Amino acid sequence: MIDLPFRPDRSAHEPVYRQLAAHVRGLVETGRLAPGTKLPASRELARSLGVGRITVVLAYHELVRTGLATSRVGQGTFVAMPEGRVASDGARRERSFVWSSLFAMRARLLELPAALAGAATMRAPRHDFRGGQVDEASLPLDETRIALASAIRRFGGKLALHGDPFGWPALREEIVRLLLTRGIRCELDEVLVTSGAQQVVDLVARVLLDPGDTVVLEQPGYFGAAMAFRAAQANVVGVGVDGEGLRTDDLARVLRARRVKLVYATPAAQSPTGVVMGEARRREFLELADTHQTPILEDDYAAELRYRSPAVSALKAADEAGQVVYAGTFAKTLFPNLRLGFVVAPRPLLRKMVLARWNADGGGSLLPQIALTTLIRSGAVERHVRRLRKIYAERLDTLRSSLAATMPPGTTWSDPAAGHGVWVTLPPGTDAEGVAHDAAAGGIAYVRGTAFYVDGQGADQISLSFSTLTPREITRGVEALAAIVRRRLPSGKRGTPARARGGRDGRIRQGTDRSRQRADRERDLDVARAGRLV
Amino acid sequence: MIDLPFRPDRSAHEPVYRQLAAHVRGLVETGRLAPGTKLPASRELARSLGVGRITVVLAYHELVRTGLATSRVGQGTFVAMPEGRVASDGARRERSFVWSSLFAMRARLLELPAALAGAATMRAPRHDFRGGQVDEASLPLDETRIALASAIRRFGGKLALHGDPFGWPALREEIVRLLLTRGIRCELDEVLVTSGAQQVVDLVARVLLDPGDTVVLEQPGYFGAAMAFRAAQANVVGVGVDGEGLRTDDLARVLRARRVKLVYATPAAQSPTGVVMGEARRREFLELADTHQTPILEDDYAAELRYRSPAVSALKAADEAGQVVYAGTFAKTLFPNLRLGFVVAPRPLLRKMVLARWNADGGGSLLPQIALTTLIRSGAVERHVRRLRKIYAERLDTLRSSLAATMPPGTTWSDPAAGHGVWVTLPPGTDAEGVAHDAAAGGIAYVRGTAFYVDGQGADQISLSFSTLTPREITRGVEALAAIVRRRLPSGKRGTPARARGGRDGRIRQGTDRSRQRADRERDLDVARAGRLV
Repeated sequence: MIDLPFRPDRSAHEPVYRQLAAHVRGLVETGRLAPGTKLPASRELARSLGVGRITVVLAYHELVRTGLATSRVGQGTFVAMPEGRVASDGARRERSFVWSSLFAMRARLLELPAALAGAATMRAPRHDFRGGQVDEASLPLDETRIALASAIRRFGGKLALHGDPFGWPALREEIVRLLLTRGIRCELDEVLVTSGAQQVVDLVARVLLDPGDTVVLEQPGYFGAAMAFRAAQANVVGVGVDGEGLRTDDLARVLRARRVKLVYATPAAQSPTGVVMGEARRREFLELADTHQTPILEDDYAAELRYRSPAVSALKAADEAGQVVYAGTFAKTLFPNLRLGFVVAPRPLLRKMVLARWNADGGGSLLPQIALTTLIRSGAVERHVRRLRKIYAERLDTLRSSLAATMPPGTTWSDPAAGHGVWVTLPPGTDAEGVAHDAAAGGIAYVRGTAFYVDGQGADQISLSFSTLTPREITRGVEALAAIVRRRLPSGKRGTPARARGGRDGRIRQGTDRSRQRADRERDLDVARAGRLV
Repeated sequence: MIDLPFRPDRSAHEPVYRQLAAHVRGLVETGRLAPGTKLPASRELARSLGVGRITVVLAYHELVRTGLATSRVGQGTFVAMPEGRVASDGARRERSFVWSSLFAMRARLLELPAALAGAATMRAPRHDFRGGQVDEASLPLDETRIALASAIRRFGGKLALHGDPFGWPALREEIVRLLLTRGIRCELDEVLVTSGAQQVVDLVARVLLDPGDTVVLEQPGYFGAAMAFRAAQANVVGVGVDGEGLRTDDLARVLRARRVKLVYATPAAQSPTGVVMGEARRREFLELADTHQTPILEDDYAAELRYRSPAVSALKAADEAGQVVYAGTFAKTLFPNLRLGFVVAPRPLLRKMVLARWNADGGGSLLPQIALTTLIRSGAVERHVRRLRKIYAERLDTLRSSLAATMPPGTTWSDPAAGHGVWVTLPPGTDAEGVAHDAAAGGIAYVRGTAFYVDGQGADQISLSFSTLTPREITRGVEALAAIVRRRLPSGKRGTPARARGGRDGRIRQGTDRSRQRADRERDLDVARAGRLV
């Protein structure tokens, strides 16, 4: 029997019989199925493909209808030879291998959300609020050059060896020491150095998630985690966020309703709102996780980017049961492109993660690890972080006051105590698509709110990062954006030369259901109107 | 109902009811289930866990039998309060979260093969034939230090940015240029820089393999690929290897018998035997893949480690249909611990791989990429590879002649024209376990043959790598090993002060079925006896 490397895509809009017909058409048109070839009996083909027989019959019918096959009674279905078409050996050997029909289910889920793709494609915008990077001018480049030269002199030979699968031990020692400032006490063998915090998310998914398992994410929440969990074929469920971060009342409801395999959270600086989870909320969160025996993945990506004292310690610091997996990173303060992160996890879990990591990439590159270790030991990292915190605090203030000074009434935004951005909600009724269009045309780049939701919400929300902009650039960028928003207000309010009517989001809107979303939005506005104006 | 976060491990030896009983015992002993707690009705629990009711009944019976629970007629099953055991709140809060019951199916498959674990644990052996590393003394460390300093000066600021998801464009340009020497013409956007070739295997698995899909591997073959494919829940099927590499007759049989999603192969230097696939075999291989529309993953790990002219070009060079995915690496010639590899693939596939890679680790570290690019451009890499090829050629010769000079008759080995090791088969009847024991005791480290098979074969085979040993060390190590093998020969032949009776493996034994294996072994011996002695 001829081999049809076809896999039905049941998540697609197109019915499977049409997919099959299109697949056979591709094989015929590229010369892989020669004219006159007998197609398999429908029963056999249905069995070998794992589809219903009717699907194959319909596909063959479609092929006959469009002239690509002929049906001979009692003999079967054959590839037709239309006039003018000649299957040459040359054509057969073209670069014509049909890959898309071979993709695994999880690969079919791999797509860049439109909001991210849109933000990513804008080249050299005039005002760049996309963030995700570090202020280049603040980087300790000279120190890095010196550190690397000395590191190569001392440890260069190690580059010839395969490294410790947990990561360079000297770097893990420094990480254990740094974690004390987050309230975390751990041992060397509870730390695995990774390629950024993103790899922690991926390894946790590999080790804990079967297809169909449920993962809870904050909404709005970090899109990188959502993408990785969805690519692992997990069922991603959102819980709301308010001025204290993840809403435990919402989480409790989800945990009661279904079995949750993992909760992903950003307590120290909710991403993207930047709000901090307070002590009481933390206790509730851990209690809930304990009651339901649900692990938590704490992404402490902004551990060093906090602008109010006293610093709140990590959730992991209060994790007596050992059910919090802690992800850290050097990408948000130091060099994003070193791609160094780490995970602290209980030994039974970490052991599996190390094995998964070996399968994934054979272990991390040693060069960035020795460079970073040398930089930490020289004190350069600490000095750099202190400097960066001051720079960012000023930028955050500027962003806040620019929003207050220029945005039309009804605009609300989060009140970050940490992180690298502010989460803005446009006034009710604003033409959000219009704003996006005008902003793109005007060279203003930001990530649209929809990128931070798993269910298509957030069209009227915007993430503004301040990390790569000077205060002056921030002011100008916000002015340009505010002018656009004013033009796109609902007709009654359009053109108002407004000043300073924006408000802070005491309760950040969230999104498990649309009616509550509307209610929350009303409440936000009430709060704003009631005088919580900046 | 109380929440039992239990998942049956159906691949485990232990029956599921015992697993469930052990799980409940863990919860009771760590205080998570308080004395007096009513356990769920067996019917309900069975439903919620997706197991048969009888499993729950048996588990409860086991708990009652061991005194951990009591059964009250008409009321149900309760957690018992044995004398002396007090459930304190302190105990409840111990580091006692039960992770193992939460592992995903694929995580349960994550284990290091015993043969690898054994080889990996030997510290500072006297004779180290494990390989997988580069000769440290040959590395261009000074050039690397200079290259890095200049790279930081020129490109340091780029470390603050997130990089091109396909990898540093300048490095991809160099890769495109280097590939011309392998006969491959490709464009910049067909190349993705990865964390070593291992990541290529993983990304291909992510994009192409659903659980249960069949992947074909050479047997013996590279264990890293086997591990990654098995962790992806693929069904790994072996095909044989002979003096020309992967046996296409064997492959044809497998392709006719079942739908194969991917063939992984090492045509330029079969791993671990080092034999090279000739032109005719290559054509057959591509023909077969084309006929069955099966993609090939070509791992060209030893592209530069070839010791006979003329060099055979890559399989990818003859891939007109675009169905070969090409994996390359700098780990085997340059710094393994830079962890730099790359993949060349048709655009539709590569696009998915880039997305999968972003989910996996957010993209590679820029630092090793700019270091390598600078080293390639300075000519240092080319000079180094030329030097290394001479060093390795001499070591291979020494290894061959040492085997011939010292191994007892009946020992056979592969005839590598490339790669970094030789594949040795002990004489029939040798006490292979005894050899392994004595070798470990005598400080001789190597990877046992079983590591290279997916079905437990290879106990009497050994992979000897020459990459980190000087000729003198090779001679001594082989002498020590030969003495051990002689002691462990079948009683009739023991003690023979043999010299030079080893032979080259014209046909390397392989392993889809044991009877053929025996036949092949006989044939090997015939060949060896017939005078193909070194």
